[in-house]
Amino acid sequence: MRTVRVGLIGLGTVGSGVVDILRRHRADFATRAGVDIELTRFADRNEARFAELGLPASACTTEAAEVLGDPDVDIVIELIGGTGVARDVVLGALAAGKSVVTANKALMASNGREVMDAADAHGVDIMFEAAVGGGIPIIGPLKHSLVSNEITAVYGIVNGTTNYMLTRMAENGLDYAAALLEAQERGFAEADPTADVDGLDAAAKIAILASIAFNSRVTSGQVPAEGIRSLAPEDIAYAAEMSYTIKLIAIARRASGSIDVRVHPTMIRSAHPLAKVSGVYNAIYVVGDSVGETMFFGEGAGSLPAASAVVGDVIEVARHIDSGCLALVGCTCHEELAVRELGELETGYYVRLVVADEPGVLAAVASVFGNHGVSIASVIQKRTTEKGAEIVYVTHRGSERAVRAALAEIDALDVVDSISAIIRVEEL
Amino acid sequence: MRTVRVGLIGLGTVGSGVVDILRRHRADFATRAGVDIELTRFADRNEARFAELGLPASACTTEAAEVLGDPDVDIVIELIGGTGVARDVVLGALAAGKSVVTANKALMASNGREVMDAADAHGVDIMFEAAVGGGIPIIGPLKHSLVSNEITAVYGIVNGTTNYMLTRMAENGLDYAAALLEAQERGFAEADPTADVDGLDAAAKIAILASIAFNSRVTSGQVPAEGIRSLAPEDIAYAAEMSYTIKLIAIARRASGSIDVRVHPTMIRSAHPLAKVSGVYNAIYVVGDSVGETMFFGEGAGSLPAASAVVGDVIEVARHIDSGCLALVGCTCHEELAVRELGELETGYYVRLVVADEPGVLAAVASVFGNHGVSIASVIQKRTTEKGAEIVYVTHRGSERAVRAALAEIDALDVVDSISAIIRVEEL
Repeated sequence: MRTVRVGLIGLGTVGSGVVDILRRHRADFATRAGVDIELTRFADRNEARFAELGLPASACTTEAAEVLGDPDVDIVIELIGGTGVARDVVLGALAAGKSVVTANKALMASNGREVMDAADAHGVDIMFEAAVGGGIPIIGPLKHSLVSNEITAVYGIVNGTTNYMLTRMAENGLDYAAALLEAQERGFAEADPTADVDGLDAAAKIAILASIAFNSRVTSGQVPAEGIRSLAPEDIAYAAEMSYTIKLIAIARRASGSIDVRVHPTMIRSAHPLAKVSGVYNAIYVVGDSVGETMFFGEGAGSLPAASAVVGDVIEVARHIDSGCLALVGCTCHEELAVRELGELETGYYVRLVVADEPGVLAAVASVFGNHGVSIASVIQKRTTEKGAEIVYVTHRGSERAVRAALAEIDALDVVDSISAIIRVEEL
Repeated sequence: MRTVRVGLIGLGTVGSGVVDILRRHRADFATRAGVDIELTRFADRNEARFAELGLPASACTTEAAEVLGDPDVDIVIELIGGTGVARDVVLGALAAGKSVVTANKALMASNGREVMDAADAHGVDIMFEAAVGGGIPIIGPLKHSLVSNEITAVYGIVNGTTNYMLTRMAENGLDYAAALLEAQERGFAEADPTADVDGLDAAAKIAILASIAFNSRVTSGQVPAEGIRSLAPEDIAYAAEMSYTIKLIAIARRASGSIDVRVHPTMIRSAHPLAKVSGVYNAIYVVGDSVGETMFFGEGAGSLPAASAVVGDVIEVARHIDSGCLALVGCTCHEELAVRELGELETGYYVRLVVADEPGVLAAVASVFGNHGVSIASVIQKRTTEKGAEIVYVTHRGSERAVRAALAEIDALDVVDSISAIIRVEEL
C-alpha cells in the first residue's frame, strides 16, 4: 500500500485536531482509502507546541520552508491563516509540486484565483472544505452532487461566534458587551473579535460560496459587510415582539446578470429554520433550479469539526495521488458576473427613531418616506424616553437607495432626535 | 473537448427530469466539467415515451440490451427500478465496461455488494447518490468530506410520501386513509403504496446509509421495518399533548460490535428539528466522532431533485472517464458487523390500552410492567369508550424484549380489552 506523506504547517486549534484524528484513525483510513496517510513533518513558529502535541523533535521545525523543501512531503496542510505568510506557504508548496489542503478562508476569498491557477499550473490539488462551515460538507457538495444545478441562492449562518452571541442576547437578554465577554471566556471569540463581530469572516465565507455556486469569482473585498457591534437589546426585543429573529446572515443571490452578495444583521421570521439555529452551529441553504431548496447544518467551528474537513480533504487528495488523478476539479469560475451595488438592493427595512413627542411628527416622517416611494408596513410607538418618543417603522420591500435617501432627510428633521437602528428584513 | 456518451434506460419521472436537465444545461456542464455530456441512446418498454419526450426515434429502443451493446455509450443510467430487469441491466452494463449511474435504492440495498464488486472487477464506476434523499447530497459527503470520521449514527426522515401523510394527519387531523388518498391524488404515493407506507423504501435507504457510514454491508432484508398503516389519529393527538410528534424515522446506530438499524413510527420531541420537517421533505442527521452532529435537508423525491443527483453523478463519472480516474472510490464495506436483534433495543415506549373501567386495573397492569423491570414514566387515563377506559403509558428507557414480554402478559389479563398501540419513543 502506498504511503502518502503529509506536512502540517500551523499547530494551533485545528492543527492539533488534525494530529489527533490521524493518531486515532490512520489505520481506518488505510482500509477505507486504500492508501496510508502519514504526518511526516510539522512546522510552527512556537516550538513549545511540538512537545505539547507529543511530536518527534526530528520531524518538527519552526521554518515552514523546510517542509516545502522536503522531498518526503506529498501534501502540505496550511493552517497558519491570513494572507501573508500563509500565501507564500501555499504558493510555495504548489510550486514545489505538492498538493495543498487549507482551512484558510481569508486567503481563498482574496487570492482564490491566484492559488487555484497555481495549483492548475503545477497539476496538483488545492482543497479547502474547512474554510467554510467548519466540518459541514458544503464545498464538496457544491462542486460535485449539486454541480448539475444552476444555483440561484446560497445563504445562511456561517459565523459561529456571532451566532453564539446573538443567541445569548436573544434568549438571555445579554447586551453586546456581555455576550462578547462570555464568548471570549468560552473560547468562541478571539481576544480581537473584529473579524467575527464586524462580519469580515462571514464575508470571506460567502465570497467563497458565491464563487463556487455562481461559477464567477467573488472576493471578500467585494462583499458589503455589516457586523453586530451596534445591535441593541431593544431591537432584538422589538423584533421578537413582531415574530422576527435577528441573525447575522450571509447572502449570495444570482441577480439579473449580476450577483447580490452581502453580510448584515437580518430580521428573519422566527418560524424560519435559520431562526432556530443556536449557539456556534452554522446552517447553509443552497437553492438550485433542479434540486430546489437544500440545507446543510453542523458545527461551524472548533478544533475537531474543522479538522474533520481538513482530514477529509487530505484523504481525498491522497486517493488522487495514489491513482494519479490530481487536479480533477480545479477552479470553476468560468463566468464574469459583476457584484451588484448595495444601493440596488430591494428588501424590507426595520427603522427605529427617537422623535419629539408632539403632534404632527408621524405625519412629517411618513411624508418623507412617501416622497421617496418607501411604503410603510407598520409603525409602532414604543416607550417614551427622556429624549422623546421611540418609534419603530417596518417598510414593505423597497430599494436600499430610496430608504437611505429618505432616512437622510428624516434625520435632518427638527422633530427627529436620532435614527437609532436600521436593520434589513428578509423573507427567506 | 471529449464527449462522454450516455445511455438512459427508463424514461419515467426521474428519466424525464434527466432529459430536461441535460437539455437546459449541457453547455454549462461542458464549461464546468471540461467534458461534453451527450445523451446518445434511450430505452423504455413504453414506446410512447420517446415521442412524449421529443427524442429522436433513431436513438430510441424498447430493448435495454441494445443500449448495453452500443459501443457509442460510455455511461449507462439505470432508472428502471427494482431488483429484476434492473439488476441484469446494471450488471450487463458493468460487464460491458460501462460505468453506471443509478437511483435504484432497492437494488443497492439488496445487491449492493454484487454490483459494487462487479464495477470493481471491470474497473468502472457505479454511483447512486439519487438512491437516498432525492437531490440531497448525502452519499457523496459520507464517502468524501466525512470519511475522516467514525460515524456513530445516521438517522432521519428518508421517505417523503409517509412524511407528507403524517404531516397532514398531525396538522389537519386526516386519518390514514384520507391522507393516503390525498398523497395519491397529488402524485406523492403510488397506486400500490406498500413500499412507502410499510417502511420498505425507508428500510432500503437506511440500509444503504448504514453500509457506507459503518463500512459494513447492511441489506434491506436485515432492517426491521414497521410502517404507518396502523397509526391512529388518537395516538398522534395524544403524542402532541405530551409535546411529542410522530414521524417515520429510519435509524442506524453503531452499537457495541454491532449495528442497531430499524425503521418505525417514532415519537420524538416536538422541539426537535426533525419534528418540523414537513411534507415531502427529507432530513438526514449524520453524527461523527470528529464532526459532531451534521444534518442534510432537502426534497426527498420528485422528478427534478432526483434527476439533479443522477446528473451530478453522471458529471462526476464523465470527469473520471475524461481523466482516466475510474473506480476512484469503490465499495467501502471493509468490516463485518452484525445487525443487532430488535429485542436488544433499549428505548422508551408509548402504549395505549383499553381496559375495564373498574378498580384495581391500574395496579394489575403496573405490577406486570414491574415484574418485567419496565418502569413507567407516565400514565394518563384518556376517554372512556364503550369498550372501557383508554389508558396511555409511557415507559422509561427499557429493553424491547422486556416490554414485549410484559405486554403479552398484560394483553392476557381479563381486565384488559386490547393493546391499541405500541410506539417507540426516541430522545434524538
